[in-house]
Amino acid sequence: MKSLLEKIHSPQDLHPLSHNELTALAKDIRSKLIEVTYKNGGHLASNLGVVELTIAIHRIFDSPRDKILFDVSHQAYVHKLLTGRNDERFSNIRQTGGYSGFCTPDESAHDVLCIGHAGTSLATALGLCIARNRLNQRHRIVVVLGDGALACGPTMEALNNITTGIRQLVVILNDNDYSIDRNIGAMAGYLNKIILSRLYKRVMHGISNALSKHKVGLKLCRMCRKFKLALKDLLLSSSFFEHYGLRYIGPIDGHNLTQLEEYLKLCRSANYPILLHVKTTKGKGNPQASASPESFHRVGPTFSKQGTAMKDVLGQTIVELAKANGKIIGITAAMGSGTGLSYLRDSLPEQYIDVGIAEEYAVTMCAGLAKGGMLPICAIYSTFMQRAFDQIAHDICLQNLPAIFCLDRAGLSANDGPTHHGLLDITYIRCLPNAVIMQPKNSEELSAMLRAALQYHAPVFIRYNGTYTYDTGSLGSEIALGRSEIIKHGQNVCLIGFGHFVDIAHRVDEILGGDCGIVNARFIKPLDERMLRDVAKKYGIIVTLEDNVLAGGFGSGVVEFYGDSNIKTRVIRIGWPDRFIEHGSNEEILRKTYGLDAEAIAKRILKID
Amino acid sequence: MKSLLEKIHSPQDLHPLSHNELTALAKDIRSKLIEVTYKNGGHLASNLGVVELTIAIHRIFDSPRDKILFDVSHQAYVHKLLTGRNDERFSNIRQTGGYSGFCTPDESAHDVLCIGHAGTSLATALGLCIARNRLNQRHRIVVVLGDGALACGPTMEALNNITTGIRQLVVILNDNDYSIDRNIGAMAGYLNKIILSRLYKRVMHGISNALSKHKVGLKLCRMCRKFKLALKDLLLSSSFFEHYGLRYIGPIDGHNLTQLEEYLKLCRSANYPILLHVKTTKGKGNPQASASPESFHRVGPTFSKQGTAMKDVLGQTIVELAKANGKIIGITAAMGSGTGLSYLRDSLPEQYIDVGIAEEYAVTMCAGLAKGGMLPICAIYSTFMQRAFDQIAHDICLQNLPAIFCLDRAGLSANDGPTHHGLLDITYIRCLPNAVIMQPKNSEELSAMLRAALQYHAPVFIRYNGTYTYDTGSLGSEIALGRSEIIKHGQNVCLIGFGHFVDIAHRVDEILGGDCGIVNARFIKPLDERMLRDVAKKYGIIVTLEDNVLAGGFGSGVVEFYGDSNIKTRVIRIGWPDRFIEHGSNEEILRKTYGLDAEAIAKRILKID
Repeated sequence: MKSLLEKIHSPQDLHPLSHNELTALAKDIRSKLIEVTYKNGGHLASNLGVVELTIAIHRIFDSPRDKILFDVSHQAYVHKLLTGRNDERFSNIRQTGGYSGFCTPDESAHDVLCIGHAGTSLATALGLCIARNRLNQRHRIVVVLGDGALACGPTMEALNNITTGIRQLVVILNDNDYSIDRNIGAMAGYLNKIILSRLYKRVMHGISNALSKHKVGLKLCRMCRKFKLALKDLLLSSSFFEHYGLRYIGPIDGHNLTQLEEYLKLCRSANYPILLHVKTTKGKGNPQASASPESFHRVGPTFSKQGTAMKDVLGQTIVELAKANGKIIGITAAMGSGTGLSYLRDSLPEQYIDVGIAEEYAVTMCAGLAKGGMLPICAIYSTFMQRAFDQIAHDICLQNLPAIFCLDRAGLSANDGPTHHGLLDITYIRCLPNAVIMQPKNSEELSAMLRAALQYHAPVFIRYNGTYTYDTGSLGSEIALGRSEIIKHGQNVCLIGFGHFVDIAHRVDEILGGDCGIVNARFIKPLDERMLRDVAKKYGIIVTLEDNVLAGGFGSGVVEFYGDSNIKTRVIRIGWPDRFIEHGSNEEILRKTYGLDAEAIAKRILKID
Repeated sequence: MKSLLEKIHSPQDLHPLSHNELTALAKDIRSKLIEVTYKNGGHLASNLGVVELTIAIHRIFDSPRDKILFDVSHQAYVHKLLTGRNDERFSNIRQTGGYSGFCTPDESAHDVLCIGHAGTSLATALGLCIARNRLNQRHRIVVVLGDGALACGPTMEALNNITTGIRQLVVILNDNDYSIDRNIGAMAGYLNKIILSRLYKRVMHGISNALSKHKVGLKLCRMCRKFKLALKDLLLSSSFFEHYGLRYIGPIDGHNLTQLEEYLKLCRSANYPILLHVKTTKGKGNPQASASPESFHRVGPTFSKQGTAMKDVLGQTIVELAKANGKIIGITAAMGSGTGLSYLRDSLPEQYIDVGIAEEYAVTMCAGLAKGGMLPICAIYSTFMQRAFDQIAHDICLQNLPAIFCLDRAGLSANDGPTHHGLLDITYIRCLPNAVIMQPKNSEELSAMLRAALQYHAPVFIRYNGTYTYDTGSLGSEIALGRSEIIKHGQNVCLIGFGHFVDIAHRVDEILGGDCGIVNARFIKPLDERMLRDVAKKYGIIVTLEDNVLAGGFGSGVVEFYGDSNIKTRVIRIGWPDRFIEHGSNEEILRKTYGLDAEAIAKRILKID
């Protein structure tokens, strides 16, 4: 017999279902989510939390006519299942050929935009509202906002811009007490205060009971609406959100389908912007995941560990350094576990700060810390550092402050895809005066670079990729500012790489017969000009290898140097092309697709005339 | 006889002054400000508004032991005058050899950091607070925040991170009803609501009267404090700021020295973070400037106009396009006047949106507008676009949305200096797939590029510099995507420039005897590869000219192309070096200093072996 979920091919198919059938459907969905994320990895806990909410949204709103935005869309798996994507590609979600782990219009008209970074949906929604109003259209715009995304700068700028002209906007605040790690800051405290308000709780409870007991339909709901809103005005008239022109409703139980539908109907009929505060339980329906939502925020396909992950080395090294020097403070933006800074949190909580999803604040605060005499080490994924570009330019590099930034996921974030690859950072940091940029070839070198960076008294950016382990090889030589490591001498072809590409260079060399020179660049900025002069004299062909777009990357710096120095040499630049790179099962597959694997690189070198 | 101002060499000199002397000093300062800004240009109105406030701060707090941060520091001229900088260099403020128009530690220990972008000071202050607490120091940290800076993302992220551990932080909200243009958004509305609250007004008035009548000293003030704070709790207990853990006091009269000092003393003695809401009048003491603060926010040295400024052409062209196409919407981030979008505001207010100092929101909202069927044209200075880097990457280019971004001040912002030069945008945009980047050689070409861009259905970035006029020359040929304009043929040397550098190329050519080829590149991305192949065949030396850092810039793209295509040619890249460029009297002086003027470029070409 077909499961209920298999009968759902579009949101339309949800309409005829009874309450019991919907409950059964929710169960089917949860089983599917657990099965698929355990296989492929992905955001399990957050998706388990929004099963009922997503069903209710798709029963009450009319997607794709109504626009539904999930912020960030790693909570959109249920949405995918309900919008015609419960197929083989869903079983392979985040794998090559499978669906993306985020919303993307390439897959479905039900996905408005590709949303992988937190805090973009409210601003997008306001733009959609203004466009709709001007074009005299009448659809609804619905934003599902995680509580972590609420407190990030872009969302708050959007909140401040909700004007009286914005009608028919429903912001659903999916409040599960977590951003990615534990929720941070005043906003979280405020949400809690609302929830704890006993008077309010009692009144809301009374209303909900009354509604559910009598199976009150849309008509009665509408009648009740005015009364309830008046009551709310009384109870929460000075509410935080109402300062921003959002009518506040909630909190309601995000796992009670009947209640959800009733409130969503209220929201649908309202002619003003509304915020519906929904309490959900991250990991709902999976006892393991709801007990430890942080580690289940995102599960790996196997949970197995091979060697030492870069983030563990980073975390452990920082703990060691911080124990020896009380001036060291570790900073993360809601990624304590993801970056390995959780080691510091657990050992030396006084030297650890998690600012929530607020990369701009994290970086500028580092400027204050450094100016005040501390030694900040701030760990932010490469893709998220894009959000703090002006902060590293204006607040750190212009002031030439000693602060260390650790950019994990520099290079591919294979399963996540284009929103999460860290393929731009070399370019956007290389143009900043005073910046030092490094990338280690293995975990030992990461640790050594971190130690060395503390001596540079400059803004230092250490990029690396933590999704793979690099425990091959030893450190080689000590890290000296701006000096590369000659790994092996050769003739004719010199391969200059860093990070994972040192390994790849070895394989290219093997394929080509073992005659290539190999240099571990270590520093992307400043360039090791002496080494570059030397290899230009010695080798006919220089191959640069990097996990960054070619435009403005490391290889670009090398050809700039040779051109400016009037050194005539043949440089082959290997890196990522000028296009957004899709997701894939792993880095190897993507490298192969784009000719960045050892075989393809070797072939390219052989073809050189 | 010496004026009072001439006797002030440090904040210490303020202490012995009587009330009457302080009033006279304020008058002296205003005269000085008017004299100097009329001569050199600069932020007149905002500085006139903070004369009493700055005097009071320096009498109550102990700079440089106490750290005083001005956000943005264009309101710090008075601070400069009171901290030993009332000298020849002040008379030449924003000129070569004169002081910077912003705070900068290079000038004085009283300047904590270089602050040219709005919204950075609160985050910096929190970092300073954490550092101070950890190092067991006891100084105060004072932030003077403009009301516009309050609503930008970085400030709001910082607000959300004020924790109970942050003690002895005084945030002075300098509320003059303007951000740069009129203040925008919910935050502004909220401030107004506070001020209009009659009950609150009456009570505050009563307290102030009582305090001033009896010349109550510090002791009595302290006694009153608890009562007043209790009263405030009662009146504004649910105040917006108190959600964020900031004790709110105000609003008070920012031109009443006695009142200011009393409240600042209260703040100084408080052991919790406090927000003091101060009402000031922008342009106070200059009837002309207070009547029209927007245009006097920043005055030019002469007010004369030569030719047509780029911003006027931009504004007028957008008005014309918007009249013909109702889908066009112009977006600015608090820079209606600065970008010329004020033309649109005045003619077609329905097609104009000012989002306040919220560049991230501006860009992401454009994504929503574009997705919703509108044609957004968003004007943001190059230096401020840095704040929305992730937004142009993730929300615009990844989605490949048709939106046009107009980047004024791309290149030098001579009088402003390092915080405001737009010397990075080519690098950080060139690495984004789907992006089209152009720069016009004159105002006619700007207008033509804008028209052409509407046809590209892609993310388009038009960079230009509005501080100079480019009315020389005619359009030449029509703008075709990715095609350059051959201005003149020559032999041996080919000069490839764009923007102002087309003019400079002409002058280089003259100096070299008129034999150079000159190409107006027009497109920085995509590169005109056919042209590049052609000139490589025809000329021995190719010179690229750009107003951007050399690292990853246009010339870098050219050497990348030649290297990848194995075309051997000599490329001389002219652009800005890898350092932050100071301010100067005008662009010419800075170009001369860095060898970017026609003479220096010609010399460099002559030296090529």
